[in-house]
Amino acid sequence: MIRHVVLLSWNEKSDDEAVAAVTRGFADLPAQIPEIRAYTFGPDLQTDRRNADYVLVADFDDEEDFQTYSNHPAHIDFMKKLTFPILSSFKAAQFALS
Amino acid sequence: MIRHVVLLSWNEKSDDEAVAAVTRGFADLPAQIPEIRAYTFGPDLQTDRRNADYVLVADFDDEEDFQTYSNHPAHIDFMKKLTFPILSSFKAAQFALS
Repeated sequence: MIRHVVLLSWNEKSDDEAVAAVTRGFADLPAQIPEIRAYTFGPDLQTDRRNADYVLVADFDDEEDFQTYSNHPAHIDFMKKLTFPILSSFKAAQFALS
Repeated sequence: MIRHVVLLSWNEKSDDEAVAAVTRGFADLPAQIPEIRAYTFGPDLQTDRRNADYVLVADFDDEEDFQTYSNHPAHIDFMKKLTFPILSSFKAAQFALS
């Protein structure tokens, strides 16, 4: 099992509505991409102002399934339409879940 | 339940031994900090060279337990001794697990 983690920060174009649309977009993906084993996401709780603005944690059986997700048209379409327009920074990594 | 996510990147002083010491340090913390509900971590699998170098995902019952962890002497001591010396960047966020 591998775990994929993303921290996102938003630009000045983001507002509550745009972020809610991102949350709805993430929520729609598991039904379209069966390789997703677990999918958790949400806005930062703002306990620290240095934090990123949004988090995704997703689990996959293996790296091949992760790549299938990453390159899936539903995922790419979601990123292009809802995330990129309000994105200021994006950082990801994947690690092995033991 | 809240999920705490950290992406770490290492500086030029890091090597395999230093990163293995970080992994052992993380592995030792749950026994010392009972507020930790789930604790997963590991080096990035290097599927993308833009990735961060290391990931932590930790779950807590609530924000108070997260703060207890964050300020716990065992956690601070681990960070100071094993993580900060090889750290080039650190980004975190916390979100509500539904």
